Amino acid sequence: MQDFHYQNGTKIIFGRETEASVGQELKKYTNKVLLHYGGGSIKKTGLYDKVMHSLHEAGIEVFELGGVKPNPRLSLVRKGINLCQEQEIPFILAVGGGSVIDSAKAIAAGVHYEGDVWDLFCGVAVEHECLPLATILTIPAAGSETSSGTVVTNDEIGLKRSFGHESLRPVFSILNPELTFTLPTYQTACGIADMLAHVLERYFTNERHVDITDRLCEATMKSIIDNGLRVMNDPFNYDIRAELMLAGMIAHNGSLDMGRIGDWASHDIEHELSGMYDIAHGAGLAIIFPAWMKYVYHHDVNRFAQFGSRVFNLEINLNHPEETALLAIEKLESFFKALGLPTSFSDADLPTDHIEELAQKLVCDCDSVGNYVPIKEADALEIYRLAL
Amino acid sequence: MQDFHYQNGTKIIFGRETEASVGQELKKYTNKVLLHYGGGSIKKTGLYDKVMHSLHEAGIEVFELGGVKPNPRLSLVRKGINLCQEQEIPFILAVGGGSVIDSAKAIAAGVHYEGDVWDLFCGVAVEHECLPLATILTIPAAGSETSSGTVVTNDEIGLKRSFGHESLRPVFSILNPELTFTLPTYQTACGIADMLAHVLERYFTNERHVDITDRLCEATMKSIIDNGLRVMNDPFNYDIRAELMLAGMIAHNGSLDMGRIGDWASHDIEHELSGMYDIAHGAGLAIIFPAWMKYVYHHDVNRFAQFGSRVFNLEINLNHPEETALLAIEKLESFFKALGLPTSFSDADLPTDHIEELAQKLVCDCDSVGNYVPIKEADALEIYRLAL
Repeated sequence: MQDFHYQNGTKIIFGRETEASVGQELKKYTNKVLLHYGGGSIKKTGLYDKVMHSLHEAGIEVFELGGVKPNPRLSLVRKGINLCQEQEIPFILAVGGGSVIDSAKAIAAGVHYEGDVWDLFCGVAVEHECLPLATILTIPAAGSETSSGTVVTNDEIGLKRSFGHESLRPVFSILNPELTFTLPTYQTACGIADMLAHVLERYFTNERHVDITDRLCEATMKSIIDNGLRVMNDPFNYDIRAELMLAGMIAHNGSLDMGRIGDWASHDIEHELSGMYDIAHGAGLAIIFPAWMKYVYHHDVNRFAQFGSRVFNLEINLNHPEETALLAIEKLESFFKALGLPTSFSDADLPTDHIEELAQKLVCDCDSVGNYVPIKEADALEIYRLAL
Repeated sequence: MQDFHYQNGTKIIFGRETEASVGQELKKYTNKVLLHYGGGSIKKTGLYDKVMHSLHEAGIEVFELGGVKPNPRLSLVRKGINLCQEQEIPFILAVGGGSVIDSAKAIAAGVHYEGDVWDLFCGVAVEHECLPLATILTIPAAGSETSSGTVVTNDEIGLKRSFGHESLRPVFSILNPELTFTLPTYQTACGIADMLAHVLERYFTNERHVDITDRLCEATMKSIIDNGLRVMNDPFNYDIRAELMLAGMIAHNGSLDMGRIGDWASHDIEHELSGMYDIAHGAGLAIIFPAWMKYVYHHDVNRFAQFGSRVFNLEINLNHPEETALLAIEKLESFFKALGLPTSFSDADLPTDHIEELAQKLVCDCDSVGNYVPIKEADALEIYRLAL
C-alpha cells in the first residue's frame, strides 16, 4: 500500500428540498456571491427562482454569470474572472452539473492568479489563493461537487485540460436527488458512465495489497451498475436517483484513492475526443474505456478477472483467466449499450479520419498518459482504432 | 434513503515513518501543546522519543499528561482539563490508541465548559468551544482518530458514557502501520472486533434503499475479516497492518452512515460490561454482538441472510432464509473465536450474577437503547443471558 495524505472537508447537505437552505448556509461565509450556471435549464425547472429567493432572504448580494456549456469554455471562465475582480466578489456558487462546477472552479483559481488562467492548466505551478466556492448539484456525474479538480476546454486551440488544487474542494455542496428527476435519459446515462469511469480509473492500479480500496471500488461500481439499469425505467424514483447521486460523489471524493495510484489514461484519451468533437464526456468514456481495456488487459489479466468476478459475478476460469477478463470487458460494454450509450466512433457518428491527430494531441505536452500502462502516441492510435 | 449532512475534515497522514512529521504539521496550528498518552508503552517502543524530538525541532512547547488506562477515566480527564486551563494550553496531541484519543477529546470538550465535564456525557447540551486536537494512532480499533465521539468511564460511579461533537474530529491524524507491529495478539484481536462492530452497528438499519452504503459496509467487513485472520500469523506484515489501520478508520469516519441510521445497542450493552468489569471493549463486543444478533435476527431475517451471503459467501436458503441468518451469526462467532477472543461470559471468566444490575444500569437514564430494535431492560437481560 502506498503512503498517502487525504483530506476532504466539503460539507455534504444531502436530501429533499435541501436547496432551500442555500442562503442560510452561504451566509456563514459571505454576503456577496457570483451565481454561476448553465444554459438556462435551472430557470425552466424553477430551481433558479428557489435559489434566488433563498439568497435574497439571507440578504446576500448576487452577481450572475450564466451560459456555461458542456465541456466548459475558457472564454467564459475569463469573463467570470474579470467579473469577480471588477466587483470584488469573494465567493462563487455553482448551480448545475460538472461543467458549471468546473467552470466555477477555474474562475476561483484564476481570480487571484496574476498571469493567464490557462497557465494553471498547462502545468505552471504557482502557489496562490483560490476563491472559496459552493455548489448545488443538478447532474450526478463528474463528482466535482467534492473533488479538488476542474477540466476546461480552451476554445481557441481546441485543447481540454485539467487542473487540481486542494483549495478547490467546495466549502459545501447541496445534493437533492429530486433535482435530477427531469434529466433526459441520455444525460442520465452519460452521468452514469462518467461516475463508473471514475471508479474504473482508480481500480486499475499496479499497487498490490489494496484489499479494502479494491473492495470499496467494487462496492461502488456494483451500486452504480444496479441503479444505473434501474433508473432507465424508473426515472422518478427518489431512492434510485439518491443512490446514483451518492455514488457519483463517492466515486470522485478521493476516498477510493487511499493507498493506491489510479490510471487516468482513458480520461485523457477521451478528453481529446470531446475536445475535438464536443461529444458528451460520459459518452466518450463509454467509447474509450472498453477499447482501452482490450488494449491493456494482458498487462494484468488477474485484475481484470477479479473485476469480472466481483463486479459482474462471473465465475473465474482459472485455467484461462483471460477468458474471464475478456468476458468482463464485454459485460461492461453491454452495460453501456443497455444505457443507450455509444461504445464506438460509428455508434456516435464520429468521423474516423482524425484519429492520428487525436493521438498526436494527446501527447503534445507529455511523453505518455496513464499510470497503469503508460500510453504513448502509437498506443493511443491503436486504442482509437479499437474504438472505431 | 435518509437525508443527511456529512463533513469530516480530518487530514489523514498515512504511511511509514509519518510520525516524524508531527512537529512540522502541528506547527501550522500551535506553539504549545498537551502531549497526552497512556501507560508508557510509547516510551518502551521509542515512539515517545521520536515525537518529542519532532516537537522540539519545530519549537513547540510541550506539557505532558500520561497515564491513560483502557476505558479512560474521568478522573484523569479532569486533571487534563485543569492542566490546560492553568497553563493556557490551546491544543492537545494524543499519542496512543482509542482510549488515549477519547481521553484527549474529553479534555478538549471540557476546557472551555463552565460546568463539570461529566454533564456533557449525561446529555446536557451546551454549545461551547472545544480545543482542537491531533493524534498519532498506535492501535487500530476505535476509529476515534477521525470520529466526532468520545467514550469515558466515570470511575466514581462506574458508568461508561459517550459524547459527540463535530468539533471533536481531530485536525489531523498520523497513521503509521509500523507502529502496530508490536501490538500483542490479544490487543490486535480486540481492535479487530471493535472496528468490525463499528460497521455491524451501521449495517443493521431499518432504512431501505441504502444499496451503496450496504455494499461499502460489506466491503469494509470483508477486508477486516480477511486481514484480521491473516495478521494473527503474520503480525509484522506491513500491508496487512496497513489494511487493518485503514479499515479501522473507514469503519468509524462516518462515511458508512450516509443515508442510514445505525443501531448501536450492542455498543451500549457492552459499555455496561466493560464499565463494570474493565474487560477490553473489543472483547466485550465479541461477547455481546453474537448474543444481540441471536435475540434480534427475527426482526429482519433477510438482512441477516444478506449479511451471510455477501460477507461470509454463504448461499442463501430462499426457502428458509433464517437458516442462512443463523449460519451467518455462527460464522461471526467463529471468526471471533479464531482471533482468540471470548464469545461468552464464561470464556472471559466474567461473573454471571450481576446481569440484572447490568441491564438496569443500561437503561437507568433512558427507556431503551438501539435504533434497529429498541432494547429495554428485559430485552437486555435476555441478551446478557444468551451471552453467558
